[in-house]
Amino acid sequence: METSPLALPFPACPPIAGVELRVARARYKAWDRCDLTFAALAEGTTVAGVTTKSKCPSPEVEWCRAALTLGRARALVVNAGNSNAFTGHRGRAAVEAIAARVAGAIGCQPSDVFVASTGVIGVPLPIDKAEAGIDAALAAAPASWEEAAATIMTTDTFPKAATATAVVDGRTVTLVGIVKGSGMIAPDMATMLGFVFTDAAIEAPLLQAMLSSANEASFSCITVDGDTSTSDTVLAFATGAAGNAPLTSMDDAGADALAAALQQVCTELAQAVVRDGEGASKFVTVEVEGAESDASARRIALSIANSPLVKTAIAGEDANWGRVVMAVGKAGEPAERDRLAIRFGATQVARDGLAVEGYDEAPVAAHLKGREVEIGVDLGLGEGRATVWTCDLTHGYISINADYRS
Amino acid sequence: METSPLALPFPACPPIAGVELRVARARYKAWDRCDLTFAALAEGTTVAGVTTKSKCPSPEVEWCRAALTLGRARALVVNAGNSNAFTGHRGRAAVEAIAARVAGAIGCQPSDVFVASTGVIGVPLPIDKAEAGIDAALAAAPASWEEAAATIMTTDTFPKAATATAVVDGRTVTLVGIVKGSGMIAPDMATMLGFVFTDAAIEAPLLQAMLSSANEASFSCITVDGDTSTSDTVLAFATGAAGNAPLTSMDDAGADALAAALQQVCTELAQAVVRDGEGASKFVTVEVEGAESDASARRIALSIANSPLVKTAIAGEDANWGRVVMAVGKAGEPAERDRLAIRFGATQVARDGLAVEGYDEAPVAAHLKGREVEIGVDLGLGEGRATVWTCDLTHGYISINADYRS
Repeated sequence: METSPLALPFPACPPIAGVELRVARARYKAWDRCDLTFAALAEGTTVAGVTTKSKCPSPEVEWCRAALTLGRARALVVNAGNSNAFTGHRGRAAVEAIAARVAGAIGCQPSDVFVASTGVIGVPLPIDKAEAGIDAALAAAPASWEEAAATIMTTDTFPKAATATAVVDGRTVTLVGIVKGSGMIAPDMATMLGFVFTDAAIEAPLLQAMLSSANEASFSCITVDGDTSTSDTVLAFATGAAGNAPLTSMDDAGADALAAALQQVCTELAQAVVRDGEGASKFVTVEVEGAESDASARRIALSIANSPLVKTAIAGEDANWGRVVMAVGKAGEPAERDRLAIRFGATQVARDGLAVEGYDEAPVAAHLKGREVEIGVDLGLGEGRATVWTCDLTHGYISINADYRS
Repeated sequence: METSPLALPFPACPPIAGVELRVARARYKAWDRCDLTFAALAEGTTVAGVTTKSKCPSPEVEWCRAALTLGRARALVVNAGNSNAFTGHRGRAAVEAIAARVAGAIGCQPSDVFVASTGVIGVPLPIDKAEAGIDAALAAAPASWEEAAATIMTTDTFPKAATATAVVDGRTVTLVGIVKGSGMIAPDMATMLGFVFTDAAIEAPLLQAMLSSANEASFSCITVDGDTSTSDTVLAFATGAAGNAPLTSMDDAGADALAAALQQVCTELAQAVVRDGEGASKFVTVEVEGAESDASARRIALSIANSPLVKTAIAGEDANWGRVVMAVGKAGEPAERDRLAIRFGATQVARDGLAVEGYDEAPVAAHLKGREVEIGVDLGLGEGRATVWTCDLTHGYISINADYRS
């Protein structure tokens, strides 16, 4: 698989005190690459998470939901190549076996072990391979962020991470996040697998509030194909090793700064997923304003971002703005055709329900030839606004998905 | 453009007394083919219609909606190559000019003239070309159903029609319908342009009730790409020339037979649109049962039918039934993973939330190699059921839509 033309270089990610990474070959598929990621987390680590809204979630998602209620974490195991979803009692047994193996090895409760898996649906995760993989990881040398980010990939073409710092209680705390895509990506959830680590000390309920808020404006604002995974999970772990007085409320000094840093990391990770969307050749930002509410703006933005006709027009560098009109019209949200304005990049193409007087397609065509495309819609109705990120729909998406399993 | 591999031969369609067809070259695009269809309708013709639910409808749609309130029709004009949507006052002026031209020529009210247009959005329909096209059509020799069905096409690769008869009041009445697709096809509407003609005598309100009902189980049950057109319109015209006592209620003798014939024609037309879906190589029937309600079943069926991952798997003849699980899970409808059953063709692949014991992929793979694919889902919750038709998602769809305007 060629690297996405939208790929970004892997950022320099510092270590996070209290987090130790290891990777191993569990060989969940017939490949010779690391596919099991293990993160050991210091005692006292708090955790928060958001998971898929799918009605058919994987047993990993159910396991994490239950464990999140306790707010503590000592380890994370991520399996790539097999999502273990829709595998009934055998899938549940595999997750329980993984948690038990780790708990026994490092001396913690099984509920302190978070598990996530990604890959094909419907095949029970082989317990023997998982256990052998965990043993190999425990015996392995420490891994880098880049190795961990590469090990959780499936159809991704480049490893994805983001980092930020914040000053809390006079101490600089650090955040590092890794994420994987890159198909079955749609919002209304925490998308696919993302993991954020920080050495900040913060109580689990506040970390959860911050993560839920950051998720709303990051992972829930991206879409590749409108398809929502059964395994989507984003977890945030805070080891507390930075030594700040533990944050308990947004009123605490530094809480704003940490929340902003978390938002930045989540947004960068979410955008990185779009940049590695299956077959993507353009990174597309859809900005909707003038809607009746922010929620309405978001639904309209997603209607545009999920439209196969809009996405194929962008792939073809075709200034076919009529398809944006179509996508606004089908969103089912309040809209008045004759107040609608549309721009591509900085060029206004339509206003008050028709093309602008003397519309010149040349600057729009030039904008569409770039790697970064911006579509702006003003509904002229109210103050609601939203920004959503997506990619174009190309032959690459078809090629990848018409023979993914083979 | 090659003819769709799912194309059907054009059926033998008898004339409908009271309907005269003509076609002409308005040259809305730089092409040398007929692109204006004109149908003259006998005095006394009643009409019913269903139109797009888009919030950005074309002026043609608005015109038809207003005219439908009167229930009478004397003519139909269909323009291909330019949808005239999102063109403001200039678009409205074009529709008014067309209606006025026809009304003057044949001696009727402008509101007796129904107008529909299909093609690119955002370019005002040129009034001079429309008027010259109408004049040419009025002077032309009568056209066949096949010529009319071909003239309303845009990216369609074969002309589509259906016919049926019913006995009403001792007389055999005939129905003929024509339709065009073939992208921007999604339900929650009357899809694209479809026209059904009958010589039955029936009052407009009853015809409307029959058409609305038929639409619910035909045009509203298909999807090609989940994109809803700004111009979707299905009109039914009843000339009354068969001489039966006009039907006024479903209790009248023969009303059931006519409704059944209308349903049959609409279903065949809707399926023909799917068979000519852009890039289609497989005709896919999605049957959902055991849902909490029929409406819930339909939404789940559409979630499956609109999923790019399901559609690309079918294109790749890949028995990736996990993607069906995903699509059920994301539909947002009541579902219980561990009661879910899935079949491909006649082969059960999953039951009670996991693959069936000893699942053999061979018969499923064989089924997927055919042109007609059937996906069955049983939710195991209630009595709700729905059937939806779609096609696969192939490189052809990308090719067609990445450079549609050029």
